[in-house]
Amino acid sequence: MTTPPPARVGDPAGAIDTPALVIDLDAFERNLDRMAAFAKETGVRIRPHAKTHKSPMIARLQMERGAVGQCCQKVGEAEVLVDGGIDDVLVSNQVVGEAKVARLAALARRARIGVCADDPLQVDAYAAAARTYGTTLHVLVEIDVGAARCGVAPGTPAVELAQRIAAADGLVFDGIQAYHGAAQHIRGYRERHAAIAKASDLVEATVDALAAAGLECRTIGGAGSGTFRFETGTGLWNELQPGSYCLMDADYGRNLKDDGSEGLEFEHALFIASTVMSAVVPGRAVVDAGLKASSVDSGLPEVWQRADTTFVSASDEHGKLSLGAGAPPAGLGDRVWLVPGHVDPTVNLYDWYVGVRGGLESGYVECLWPVAARGALT
Amino acid sequence: MTTPPPARVGDPAGAIDTPALVIDLDAFERNLDRMAAFAKETGVRIRPHAKTHKSPMIARLQMERGAVGQCCQKVGEAEVLVDGGIDDVLVSNQVVGEAKVARLAALARRARIGVCADDPLQVDAYAAAARTYGTTLHVLVEIDVGAARCGVAPGTPAVELAQRIAAADGLVFDGIQAYHGAAQHIRGYRERHAAIAKASDLVEATVDALAAAGLECRTIGGAGSGTFRFETGTGLWNELQPGSYCLMDADYGRNLKDDGSEGLEFEHALFIASTVMSAVVPGRAVVDAGLKASSVDSGLPEVWQRADTTFVSASDEHGKLSLGAGAPPAGLGDRVWLVPGHVDPTVNLYDWYVGVRGGLESGYVECLWPVAARGALT
Repeated sequence: MTTPPPARVGDPAGAIDTPALVIDLDAFERNLDRMAAFAKETGVRIRPHAKTHKSPMIARLQMERGAVGQCCQKVGEAEVLVDGGIDDVLVSNQVVGEAKVARLAALARRARIGVCADDPLQVDAYAAAARTYGTTLHVLVEIDVGAARCGVAPGTPAVELAQRIAAADGLVFDGIQAYHGAAQHIRGYRERHAAIAKASDLVEATVDALAAAGLECRTIGGAGSGTFRFETGTGLWNELQPGSYCLMDADYGRNLKDDGSEGLEFEHALFIASTVMSAVVPGRAVVDAGLKASSVDSGLPEVWQRADTTFVSASDEHGKLSLGAGAPPAGLGDRVWLVPGHVDPTVNLYDWYVGVRGGLESGYVECLWPVAARGALT
Repeated sequence: MTTPPPARVGDPAGAIDTPALVIDLDAFERNLDRMAAFAKETGVRIRPHAKTHKSPMIARLQMERGAVGQCCQKVGEAEVLVDGGIDDVLVSNQVVGEAKVARLAALARRARIGVCADDPLQVDAYAAAARTYGTTLHVLVEIDVGAARCGVAPGTPAVELAQRIAAADGLVFDGIQAYHGAAQHIRGYRERHAAIAKASDLVEATVDALAAAGLECRTIGGAGSGTFRFETGTGLWNELQPGSYCLMDADYGRNLKDDGSEGLEFEHALFIASTVMSAVVPGRAVVDAGLKASSVDSGLPEVWQRADTTFVSASDEHGKLSLGAGAPPAGLGDRVWLVPGHVDPTVNLYDWYVGVRGGLESGYVECLWPVAARGALT
């Protein structure tokens, strides 16, 4: 049920069939290099999040540049990563259900596998499965540092759970997971920083309480593409989990920088190639990319480098563009490049990355990478 | 890159791994029967929309009950339907781009293929490809009846385009496509009816103008699950294109009926099976179904038959539930059934339908149907 790729290696970028998920490889590699340089400079470990890219090929490029492993959210993603040659994977999430926990423990035969817990029942299930498969699972206690989603309360509850992990055969207590998801898209720089400063107090108190109980944190994990400099600045977090930085999206582009301006520390490297499929009324054009081509949970896609042209609404298979007075013509068959609103669920809609070298307009297709963990929900 | 199915035939429904896309087969078949009875009663033709279900198996069940063919929006969907045994497919959309038009014309070797046009350039491209492949394409002129998306203006522009089609070797002028997408989810019954009444005037004027030019409409197509009774009531439309009726979603559930009450003419037959993966804080539970398990473009999923329990936010792989005072417990590992906000883009996230007979709670898995046209974007 895999769809055929929308291009062939060697095709000019203009010949890519649409809609297609296109990586500007030059921008993408600059993003990878930038994060690798940051890690080298600060000494922090990078464990990029594969829930964003879902690709063992991208994972390998990150690890060649010094990443210590990969994160993901689902056992199915971990399986795809390990099958693709990644030997150190953290499921930065709770895994619940007998079948899933069994798969996780079995996978630990072939790679170093980490997982999170926020409940003693999870710990017991992990331990039982690890014993069954004769493997070891490296478990992080997830603490809630402000997202009000998963995670035990910092301090004593975290210590109690860590003790249970440390006492269990088949499990290793690896440290704490302290990811503040809700902070990644706080627009204001100061407000975003303040959210992490608050989280930092909670992490510090928890690390101290663990130390007092004789439990050392090998890993203090968390941080995303919107906040990783802040976590690093505290000197507490030692393993960052950014996902979006390598590809970016329109929503991250709306975060404000230190000086109050909008903009990205990383470059947009992910695009949807679309085609004008209807252009009947002046001032309006309809492209062939709608809700099934670009997830709109974090806003509509943005039109890339076309003056006065706005993506105004999406239906299942249509995107409506409004063309202002200063817009270049958008005639039937014309190519329109879009920046998706939210990278992770958009990537999950495609079977193939089309990698373009030399720019979107005049470049050529250098590679076709399967989105190998697309749809890996369980 | 197809993911393994989340269940086996014969499993109890409670054993389905999560998240999973589950059909309540009893409700689903009642929906199919209800629409078939309507068609029989009124004499209107039904051509259900496969952009909703993306499944040749569901298409066959619809055709066994009298549907005349299938609609879809993409050439890739049409290919999957024809490969799956459907011999009459309308791409109810413009097809633009040489590669796509070639595939469409080639497909017409194996099935009756229809397509829409709103531009002379499309007509010329269809005709050239049909001649190349020695096939015939049945072309509908799309007119804009109020959605302000694709389609020529009703009346003279439609006649001019129809004449161009009728004059082209390889093409047959089949009639008009008059689908009012924007009307499907107008909440008020009267307002929804009024939108179709307006559309009806435009259709009538266009049909008359075509007749005056000697062009007969074999097909006057359009109508969706929210309005099909209104189009039928006009006596103009003779081929309905409802998609969602067979599965339904939460958004259709918010349409108002004749008496002002909320509710569906069809039954919810599509569900997401999810599992509570974190339950640390009283009043809150987190399920394993987020943005990659249920499209939120038309609102969050709704919790099915759990009192005082609300789905309050979705992140990529998490769904947060709020449990009120009257809510039943939602403990770690518990099953929660969700009704997706919008059926079409949600179905497109999955590789498999899990068909359950005998109810979600106590039934068993009767079938696993591939979502064969999932990701068919081109």
